Amino acid sequence: MMDNFQSRISPEQIESIWRSANESGLLPSATKSVIVHDLERMRSRIAALISAFPAQTLHAIAIKANPVVEILRTAVDSGAGLEAASIEEVRLAVAAGCGAHRIVFDSPAKTESEIAECLELGVHLNVDNFAELARVDESLRSKSSASTIGIRVNPEVAAGAIAQTSVGSAGSKFGVSITSDRDKIVAAFERHPWLVGLHIHVGSQGCDLDLLCLAAKKIEALREHIQRATGRKISLIDIGGGLPAAYNDGDQPPTAQQYSDQLASEVPELMSDDTKLMTEFGRSLHAGCGVALSRVEYVRNESSSEPMAVIHLGADFLLRPVYRSNDWSHQFVLLDSQGRLKNGAKKPVTIAGPLCFAGDILARQVDLSQPEPGDWIAIRDCGAYTLSMWSRHCNRGIPAVVGYLGEQPMKVLRHEESADDVVRFWSH
Amino acid sequence: MMDNFQSRISPEQIESIWRSANESGLLPSATKSVIVHDLERMRSRIAALISAFPAQTLHAIAIKANPVVEILRTAVDSGAGLEAASIEEVRLAVAAGCGAHRIVFDSPAKTESEIAECLELGVHLNVDNFAELARVDESLRSKSSASTIGIRVNPEVAAGAIAQTSVGSAGSKFGVSITSDRDKIVAAFERHPWLVGLHIHVGSQGCDLDLLCLAAKKIEALREHIQRATGRKISLIDIGGGLPAAYNDGDQPPTAQQYSDQLASEVPELMSDDTKLMTEFGRSLHAGCGVALSRVEYVRNESSSEPMAVIHLGADFLLRPVYRSNDWSHQFVLLDSQGRLKNGAKKPVTIAGPLCFAGDILARQVDLSQPEPGDWIAIRDCGAYTLSMWSRHCNRGIPAVVGYLGEQPMKVLRHEESADDVVRFWSH
Repeated sequence: MMDNFQSRISPEQIESIWRSANESGLLPSATKSVIVHDLERMRSRIAALISAFPAQTLHAIAIKANPVVEILRTAVDSGAGLEAASIEEVRLAVAAGCGAHRIVFDSPAKTESEIAECLELGVHLNVDNFAELARVDESLRSKSSASTIGIRVNPEVAAGAIAQTSVGSAGSKFGVSITSDRDKIVAAFERHPWLVGLHIHVGSQGCDLDLLCLAAKKIEALREHIQRATGRKISLIDIGGGLPAAYNDGDQPPTAQQYSDQLASEVPELMSDDTKLMTEFGRSLHAGCGVALSRVEYVRNESSSEPMAVIHLGADFLLRPVYRSNDWSHQFVLLDSQGRLKNGAKKPVTIAGPLCFAGDILARQVDLSQPEPGDWIAIRDCGAYTLSMWSRHCNRGIPAVVGYLGEQPMKVLRHEESADDVVRFWSH
Repeated sequence: MMDNFQSRISPEQIESIWRSANESGLLPSATKSVIVHDLERMRSRIAALISAFPAQTLHAIAIKANPVVEILRTAVDSGAGLEAASIEEVRLAVAAGCGAHRIVFDSPAKTESEIAECLELGVHLNVDNFAELARVDESLRSKSSASTIGIRVNPEVAAGAIAQTSVGSAGSKFGVSITSDRDKIVAAFERHPWLVGLHIHVGSQGCDLDLLCLAAKKIEALREHIQRATGRKISLIDIGGGLPAAYNDGDQPPTAQQYSDQLASEVPELMSDDTKLMTEFGRSLHAGCGVALSRVEYVRNESSSEPMAVIHLGADFLLRPVYRSNDWSHQFVLLDSQGRLKNGAKKPVTIAGPLCFAGDILARQVDLSQPEPGDWIAIRDCGAYTLSMWSRHCNRGIPAVVGYLGEQPMKVLRHEESADDVVRFWSH
């Protein structure tokens, strides 16, 4: 069964996740929080991606969305490649068992030694700018490589709804310009036979299918222009990521199939057999697969009409919802100390994190039943860009990450960080 | 010589820091960034603090401002105590050689086992709320402790200029209310002989001396009320932190001496011999002691009137300046590849971080000379709440932290995190 990218872990499923975590001995009284990843859902989403796009497409999942090695390994085993935003992420991909030709290295700040390492490995490189192109050229003069190499082009479409994650508008820090650099791009393809691909990425949350398809049309037009001008065939097109994820009741983000259908209708050349397509999904794949459970440690103003539940995850875990609360938010579910959904009369509850930082408020006025110490708050849809952005602020240890595959017992994918681990982290 | 809390590492001193780092072999071509802490300046600030306040004052430096163990050790050796915002930070304090009675544990989410551990160690606890007070009481019934214990009171003064770091206004997530909880506070002191202190904390950046002194007056009035009502003498007062740091030319934040003088004039009882005062400075102590050096990897739009320098530190290091740029910013200095200040004609330069994230812009329109690849950008005043809040976003390794003491050679205080370290971090 394939997941349609719109599904979310329901409150009833969260109840069953809690029960299963408890039965697996993962919620002893010392456990403050645990992060759960639904590996089955992730696998079925990857299957949906693979099925929606042409067979030769490489789906390189963004490691920065969720870098837990065991999660990456499951993605690779399910047929995905991996997209790395740093040389460290290239190493994570290798550690997860991803073949080098299925690793895509994107970064706007690649050093000479990072470029050399990736050419040596045979990783696909998306070059960000002409200065980097010259470095790659220099490196390839002294040593051949199995790497395929593309260049990132800024399609200069409008920004999406969230400026900070929209990368394809004019003046962005990424890529060469599809307008003002057009002749230089053609010249680069003319000069460098090893340059075989084009890469675009418009953004993720806040960008709709029309915007993504518009960018795809522009890159296809550029490809045709380059082909005409150089007589070469450019077959590798990396369309980046960009599907939004569902975070709220009623959200119906586009599915992989809808995206693919619209691409096939508007830019059929991209979906043809002689194009090698690459994608870089992250948020839309992972977000709905994750749920975090955190114990309610204290309830402030417990008997008032607006209580505040203090839990054990804050701006360290939900960095963007805390610092950019207008752009990012999650839904919460309240369970009692035995993991049962609490269905009493609703109140506007403030959910506070544990940090010694006044701004560490995850959400205000959340419609929940009366919270009590010992209850659990589940944070929905936090499988992407939460743990992966973990901030050390106040130095709390990272909770255990556990995974489950259908009815199999839960498995620890990344151990809970102990206080001693944190001391080691800051020691010589 | 004592530092007055207003001094900053000057561009000329940055030049000499670069030279010294280079001579110490810390800037080989593979080095992308390095973080430097001026331990001498820190020591002289601690000396200034000690000299400004009554001799019996405990200055517990906030670990969350800068948790590098070797930096903490130098602070402790200079006569400071340490303030911990989590049990992990308590362990960091112990690792840095801080005596338990000189460690202050503040957290709004202390668990029963964390409370038990601290009572066992003899760490000073500031209780955040009445539910926690009951837990401490329960714990002390079964086992005595060398700990001193205070209660955090929200003085309910106005918020400072930055809402997210102002913790002392009404409705904050910290402490018990100086107005509505007044009788319960008195009752707690009546009932619990082990409750010996009062704690306030108003905020840090954005709060002025008048606001800090107003809060101090309110806590002194509360102390007198409790003493009258209970017949007990309450001698321990923790006034928290709160001095702002200098981040811009012309900033003249209050010095420790000015703060102390104003307290002595407005709340003389606090500064008397029979009060045991505690402070919790962090930002004002550390910020000006730190400078980060990062290599310019690429320059976008190099020949335009508004070039963009891409460096190796971004939202992972300067989280708040990126996510809350209206509230937080730093000044930058441009050095050439040989570490010399560049003094050519100025342009408005954008400084971009290395993350695959469109919002990863450290500053726009910074007045700098023309940047070139291989140059270095120094970020001033980043000794506090920068590295300590490190976010894993894109998983780049943490740069080395080096320290220097006057003319002594530079010393690595925390090694550079390797790609393998990062792989281990996300592995089982």
